[in-house]
Amino acid sequence: MERRFPTVALVGRAHDPRVTDSLLALAEHLRRGGREVICETGPLAELFGGLAGAVPATVLARRADLVVAVGGDGTMLYAAQLVLGGDTPLLGINRGRLGFLTDISPPEMIARLDEVLAGQYQEDVRALLTARLERAGREPLTCDALNDVVVQKHATGRMIEFDTRIDGVYVNTHGGDGLVVATSTGSTAYALSCGGPIIHPRLDALVIAPISPHTLSDRPIVVGRHSAIEVRLLERSETRAEVTFDGNLLGELDHGDRLVLGAAERSVTLLHPHGHDFFRILRSKLHWGRSARNPDEPC
Amino acid sequence: MERRFPTVALVGRAHDPRVTDSLLALAEHLRRGGREVICETGPLAELFGGLAGAVPATVLARRADLVVAVGGDGTMLYAAQLVLGGDTPLLGINRGRLGFLTDISPPEMIARLDEVLAGQYQEDVRALLTARLERAGREPLTCDALNDVVVQKHATGRMIEFDTRIDGVYVNTHGGDGLVVATSTGSTAYALSCGGPIIHPRLDALVIAPISPHTLSDRPIVVGRHSAIEVRLLERSETRAEVTFDGNLLGELDHGDRLVLGAAERSVTLLHPHGHDFFRILRSKLHWGRSARNPDEPC
Amino acid sequence: MERRFPTVALVGRAHDPRVTDSLLALAEHLRRGGREVICETGPLAELFGGLAGAVPATVLARRADLVVAVGGDGTMLYAAQLVLGGDTPLLGINRGRLGFLTDISPPEMIARLDEVLAGQYQEDVRALLTARLERAGREPLTCDALNDVVVQKHATGRMIEFDTRIDGVYVNTHGGDGLVVATSTGSTAYALSCGGPIIHPRLDALVIAPISPHTLSDRPIVVGRHSAIEVRLLERSETRAEVTFDGNLLGELDHGDRLVLGAAERSVTLLHPHGHDFFRILRSKLHWGRSARNPDEPC
Amino acid sequence: MERRFPTVALVGRAHDPRVTDSLLALAEHLRRGGREVICETGPLAELFGGLAGAVPATVLARRADLVVAVGGDGTMLYAAQLVLGGDTPLLGINRGRLGFLTDISPPEMIARLDEVLAGQYQEDVRALLTARLERAGREPLTCDALNDVVVQKHATGRMIEFDTRIDGVYVNTHGGDGLVVATSTGSTAYALSCGGPIIHPRLDALVIAPISPHTLSDRPIVVGRHSAIEVRLLERSETRAEVTFDGNLLGELDHGDRLVLGAAERSVTLLHPHGHDFFRILRSKLHWGRSARNPDEPC
Repeated sequence: MERRFPTVALVGRAHDPRVTDSLLALAEHLRRGGREVICETGPLAELFGGLAGAVPATVLARRADLVVAVGGDGTMLYAAQLVLGGDTPLLGINRGRLGFLTDISPPEMIARLDEVLAGQYQEDVRALLTARLERAGREPLTCDALNDVVVQKHATGRMIEFDTRIDGVYVNTHGGDGLVVATSTGSTAYALSCGGPIIHPRLDALVIAPISPHTLSDRPIVVGRHSAIEVRLLERSETRAEVTFDGNLLGELDHGDRLVLGAAERSVTLLHPHGHDFFRILRSKLHWGRSARNPDEPC
Repeated sequence: MERRFPTVALVGRAHDPRVTDSLLALAEHLRRGGREVICETGPLAELFGGLAGAVPATVLARRADLVVAVGGDGTMLYAAQLVLGGDTPLLGINRGRLGFLTDISPPEMIARLDEVLAGQYQEDVRALLTARLERAGREPLTCDALNDVVVQKHATGRMIEFDTRIDGVYVNTHGGDGLVVATSTGSTAYALSCGGPIIHPRLDALVIAPISPHTLSDRPIVVGRHSAIEVRLLERSETRAEVTFDGNLLGELDHGDRLVLGAAERSVTLLHPHGHDFFRILRSKLHWGRSARNPDEPC
Repeated sequence: MERRFPTVALVGRAHDPRVTDSLLALAEHLRRGGREVICETGPLAELFGGLAGAVPATVLARRADLVVAVGGDGTMLYAAQLVLGGDTPLLGINRGRLGFLTDISPPEMIARLDEVLAGQYQEDVRALLTARLERAGREPLTCDALNDVVVQKHATGRMIEFDTRIDGVYVNTHGGDGLVVATSTGSTAYALSCGGPIIHPRLDALVIAPISPHTLSDRPIVVGRHSAIEVRLLERSETRAEVTFDGNLLGELDHGDRLVLGAAERSVTLLHPHGHDFFRILRSKLHWGRSARNPDEPC
Repeated sequence: MERRFPTVALVGRAHDPRVTDSLLALAEHLRRGGREVICETGPLAELFGGLAGAVPATVLARRADLVVAVGGDGTMLYAAQLVLGGDTPLLGINRGRLGFLTDISPPEMIARLDEVLAGQYQEDVRALLTARLERAGREPLTCDALNDVVVQKHATGRMIEFDTRIDGVYVNTHGGDGLVVATSTGSTAYALSCGGPIIHPRLDALVIAPISPHTLSDRPIVVGRHSAIEVRLLERSETRAEVTFDGNLLGELDHGDRLVLGAAERSVTLLHPHGHDFFRILRSKLHWGRSARNPDEPC
């Protein structure tokens, strides 16, 4: 069944002029086209004035047929949290540089958005990673992440030590700065800086990548997304560790706590204009193919 | 349906005394147990004398209910080529050091083999990678690999340049020593030395890892095993490239040739005694957990 | 001129029984040999009771002819801070596992110490790295480090962005978890986990290694030790960064602050029994040469 | 004493039109300025016709006061071999993309060359690596390299195994594709693709980097340039290895042969226009600083 988009929510940082210029142009264009435009209450609503209806962030996605996010991949991660648990799809527009999730550039944004609104789009369902941080005598803390869940030392200066298990089987005792567990989507974000591989978006997998590991052979492991990954701090370690998801704090990981990661039930649906090409984005972001050898490749 | 093993084929290098001692002990034990023992014609048959029937390598696996390989992972790769295309399973025994594929050690080999022969085993079906090297006006050269297919510069001293495509979509133009495409099984072999991740054996994936790439951001990519991967040399390059599979030569990759890689229809079945643990092997092979921090972990 | 050692200071963690057993045995042995034994006031002095004179940490090294540290490399870094600025040499004894700086093992410690006390030793002068953290309107914070000075993000979840200059020349703008600047001595510590090379102890060099850099080609740089390295945070970054030296906090690096690193005037003198071999320690610590290929190499 | 440049030798690939256009323009400009232009006998001499005197390659540099090379870093390596053993300096002009050694770009080449000819230049003396390949009963094969000396497996498909020694002390037994030993100059070439660090050109050091090593902790080592590095193949290995220097074949490394590497007596002098900046070249070649974060940095 084809989607229809009478109401469009706009998301972006209200303090970045590269973002607000685009947001205002989009709002005006959408209104001219007879669509309802909504946005989160707060500075963005002030910016829009009468152009957009102000709605609390918690219900924004439910009230919209499409969420358009303008900014970097950080803004997309924020928008992904808004659309979680519903069916509203997400469209990403960048600020002038291609992002892994924001593949539409400002000069073409109006034309591309119109294509999408006219039904000319590809749906791209991204699986999420779910995390549960368990502590005796407390409700578990939980989250769903589009990119990654990270365990990381909190106080600098000393490594943390922790055990990992996959589907109940002991894997390794790690020493180092921490651990990233990333979805295919997140494999090109922080996990890549930690030596992880690029995982094709259509492969239903997770990468478990140690951060600056003490043992040089402690290498990233790729497992099926439905694996249950468990992390526990060693008791003898003196340092503190924090758990973050998509860059947001979930909580502190203490001795005795258990962090369990696995496949989320919810997902996020991205829309792309036709012609979306994962490898073109990779080439652009990673400066591949920029050589005299490959003169036909646009930079 | 349970397997039965009236005929067992023994495989190993006839010139390595660590191997031949084990092979002779196994042959005697199997014969005492009333089983037929067979081996490849050649030096191994001479070694066994009357203990084993000599059979050409091409039909060895078909004539056996089980192939037992003694040696390193190289011997297992050889044995895997023997069992390809049939249903005969493969059991690996090492020479004193755990291998990724040879997880039974000499001191326990008789006991473990007896368990397996008595039906106490886990079946472990490993997917294969198939390669087709196409050249105009010639029958394509083909192979199935358990570990990997490698494109590598032939003459040292200069890098090769080549394009890759996945499912028909252009990925990148690479310069460097070459490219490894490895199965999950092969991810812990050569691909790991090229910066690839460890892929869990149950994940149906391939890793595409450039070898000493000229561009530092040219990182390994993990894709579903049913992806069609294509490699072509650039015309302007002056060097030669060879294609090998599991360490064996398939042929030369010339300008204009096309190498296509993908999921093989055939697979290889490994048998393990109960208690087989992929992560225990990883810890042992990669010297993980060998620290004062983790005193409970056996080395 | 040969050194003489009438007074020996003992250093180690008072709460680790593997350490205290060695310390007590050493104290008794030294006393039996007619030497004066001193230690830091506090729990260690209580442990020793009448065996050792208690002296404040700040003057311990000046009052001793030799400092013997028992423990891991962390204890050696602590002891190195004690001997800074004087000529008292340092001898390291491990807790059962070879360390990069503690190359004497418990079973041989008495014999090796006696050799050293008898003048049978190699002097090994290690250069230090000095850091100065400058902030307008405040006395600069300074330190000397044996291993490394680290700039690292403080709040997890977001990368820091910073500029580097070498001898006044702009090098790069980095995004990531931070930066390690290590001496040759420290090249085998944290910098190695960050992808840095091993630097031979006799090479007068520093390695500048980014930590989990956002840009994959942002690779470690090795420069002469007398280079002046400057680090400044970018103003637009929202995160906080801390500077640590040898695992100890120097202070926070704020926008507008300047961290300057370079060759220290002071050094630390290690003593080794004859036969000290840097590469043997490397092989042991990095699990090199542990293969059937190299059966003559002791593990 | 200031250099004078009445005779200029031009070097470049005669079959690359991007090179020959520059060469012809340079020759004409130099002739108009009253200088003698010479080149190697062969296709280049045919190209130049009456513009340049043809001289055998072996004496070209000795007959010139300056060698100007147009092309990539490969052409500079070739030109470096021509000037070895004399005092004639070398100036590098690229084909449109900055090279590590060819830092002058075509649009500015006439202006920059005129500055250099007028005495406005920086001298940049680059140390060389010397190699001696010894075999019993044969004259040793020797070479001097500007970038690197590489030991590499010859037949693909199998790793080679070899021992290394530094200043007579056993370092490690390596298994893998081979070993690069690079000068500071060569650290940004092949060694960088093998995981080696960037070494500042003014640091008198060598990097020893294993190529796709079997052991993951077998990491690059940086040593002083005057170290004597020895490489020997293990006898039990079945494969062949070749030694190349700056991409040229020195010879085969057989069991029993000894390859000894160390500081060359000769060096190569590069000339740069004023304003030469090693880090600017790094940033350009490695695509550093290409982010919205660093908008002031030219790409």
